Amino acid sequence: MKIAVDAMGGDFAPREIVQGAVQAVQEYGFQIILVGDTEKITAELGSFPRDKIELVHTKEVIAMDEHPASSVRKKKGSSIVQANLLVKEGSAQAVVSAGSTGAAMAASLLYLGRIKGIDRPAIASVLPTMKGGTVLLDVGANVDCKPQYLLQFAIMGNLYASKILGIIKPRVGLLNIGEEETKGNELTLAAFPLLRQSGIDFIGNVEGREVFSGDIDVIVCDGFVGNIVLKTSEGLAMALKSMIKQEISCSITAKLGILLTLPSLKRFRQRIDYTEYGGAPLLGINGISVISHGSSTAKAIKNAIRVAADAVENGLVSSIRADIEKGQDTKGVEYSEEV
Amino acid sequence: MKIAVDAMGGDFAPREIVQGAVQAVQEYGFQIILVGDTEKITAELGSFPRDKIELVHTKEVIAMDEHPASSVRKKKGSSIVQANLLVKEGSAQAVVSAGSTGAAMAASLLYLGRIKGIDRPAIASVLPTMKGGTVLLDVGANVDCKPQYLLQFAIMGNLYASKILGIIKPRVGLLNIGEEETKGNELTLAAFPLLRQSGIDFIGNVEGREVFSGDIDVIVCDGFVGNIVLKTSEGLAMALKSMIKQEISCSITAKLGILLTLPSLKRFRQRIDYTEYGGAPLLGINGISVISHGSSTAKAIKNAIRVAADAVENGLVSSIRADIEKGQDTKGVEYSEEV
Repeated sequence: MKIAVDAMGGDFAPREIVQGAVQAVQEYGFQIILVGDTEKITAELGSFPRDKIELVHTKEVIAMDEHPASSVRKKKGSSIVQANLLVKEGSAQAVVSAGSTGAAMAASLLYLGRIKGIDRPAIASVLPTMKGGTVLLDVGANVDCKPQYLLQFAIMGNLYASKILGIIKPRVGLLNIGEEETKGNELTLAAFPLLRQSGIDFIGNVEGREVFSGDIDVIVCDGFVGNIVLKTSEGLAMALKSMIKQEISCSITAKLGILLTLPSLKRFRQRIDYTEYGGAPLLGINGISVISHGSSTAKAIKNAIRVAADAVENGLVSSIRADIEKGQDTKGVEYSEEV
Repeated sequence: MKIAVDAMGGDFAPREIVQGAVQAVQEYGFQIILVGDTEKITAELGSFPRDKIELVHTKEVIAMDEHPASSVRKKKGSSIVQANLLVKEGSAQAVVSAGSTGAAMAASLLYLGRIKGIDRPAIASVLPTMKGGTVLLDVGANVDCKPQYLLQFAIMGNLYASKILGIIKPRVGLLNIGEEETKGNELTLAAFPLLRQSGIDFIGNVEGREVFSGDIDVIVCDGFVGNIVLKTSEGLAMALKSMIKQEISCSITAKLGILLTLPSLKRFRQRIDYTEYGGAPLLGINGISVISHGSSTAKAIKNAIRVAADAVENGLVSSIRADIEKGQDTKGVEYSEEV
């Protein structure tokens, strides 16, 4: 198993990316191809043995404010494009990037293509809940969706939950403003019957209140709503932490109290640590492409590499292909590559 | 000032509603008209002096699963309809209800009507943040919106933040998936220029991460997104609390530690207590109608009554009327009463 890693993408690239690759080699024994500026990568690698790590040199850089689709078309020499091309030509089995989500998605769409029958690839994020992870998709790839896209997201999310998270018969819900079938906006009202007929374990509409309950394994929504749910949750968790800190810093007794609870709080932090889940696979792409958080640490990268390897080993792409071909009513429109 | 309160609406009605009314009389000296089953209300009131509290007897009940618009049309004898009629005929200046949001909204729309120039009334919710309250609207009245609705929400939210929360020159943001003007779905892309030309202090797009930062005073979105943001936040806060509790209950040291931090945690809880904000006014209605949380306690009802009184005293309805008439481009479609 060889995994191509975009060494230049992410807020802490190349340092944390290279360290994450090193950890993945040490822990799992994968072969890694680091794609990027070899001089900088070599400086980070130091004396780490090279038998499990290959380097592919690139120079071009895609800036965060560049238009994703046109930049990956023009800048063939960028690390994200070259990493995807390694998968396309068969030199690697999966690609991992912590760079711009738009550019990573555009590169995978353009160079790896879509699975036949999938109108739009989706980004699946795993949320930490009280009872393990919940898959939320789409979290930002498609802001305006048609009902059949949500059906395709449900099918792909279902496979991701079972193949990668190991959940037997995942419970799939449609994110909505009420539980009743008659509740919702035009999109969810039209998607509901499609999901019910899909053959997956569709448990109906789920409200925002249930997102973090852990009672639903896969939550389906359009990319606008999913992105806002994901970021609002991150923001709220941070705000709550700061508010608690503020209150506690006003009191010496409280400070002492917190010292005593530290081990418990640490266990809690580990439970909700997004870096544990590593990365969000781009589902619907004709190959394995995992997008990691822009602020990924080495640990997040290591786990993203593990997610990518799991997806390869469990045949995620061929499973999606098979389920989509099973004749589910997913007839859709042509995909425009303007992402 | 007389405020009509639907005594029969809410999970803990009539007990908590009646207690809340009593507290509002004691604390603020308002005149309250309790609308509902007088026998049950009297039992709750006990020996409380009646000079500030009037009763209006009603018998009909609207169940949670009834269609809001048709039920308030048919059941004129229900407490929610009668409470709105008291405002319509001038016997009360505002109405407060903790019953079904749909029924409360339908009753206010049907019997009080819309402000001229407003296509759709919106429900505004006040979120607790690190730096005070942030107004989020719409949180569920309108699931499919047109761009001009968002403009009207922005104008109404702006007035609510300044007139009721006392924020000078509120900063108004559009909830979106990126900060750049070019980011968004069809709706937000079309709404952005309308908000920029509106004359309010429009600070541009805001991402989910900023919702709880307290840096934005008014956040505008469609009712589908707003409802999901609100409920996901409630759910996440609850889930975090349970997870911390679970971890702490495993350790005696941690339990002792928490005892020491209790006063700080209590102050924290007060800061994020939704009952402090009392209720969500229905903005755009030709009268003051405040919707309180279904699980409202007496304190929440008391604060909802205060919000209603503030809105009356500060002339919220006439301010909205004036700002909408100022010639802002809010031309819209006819409102369908099918809520």
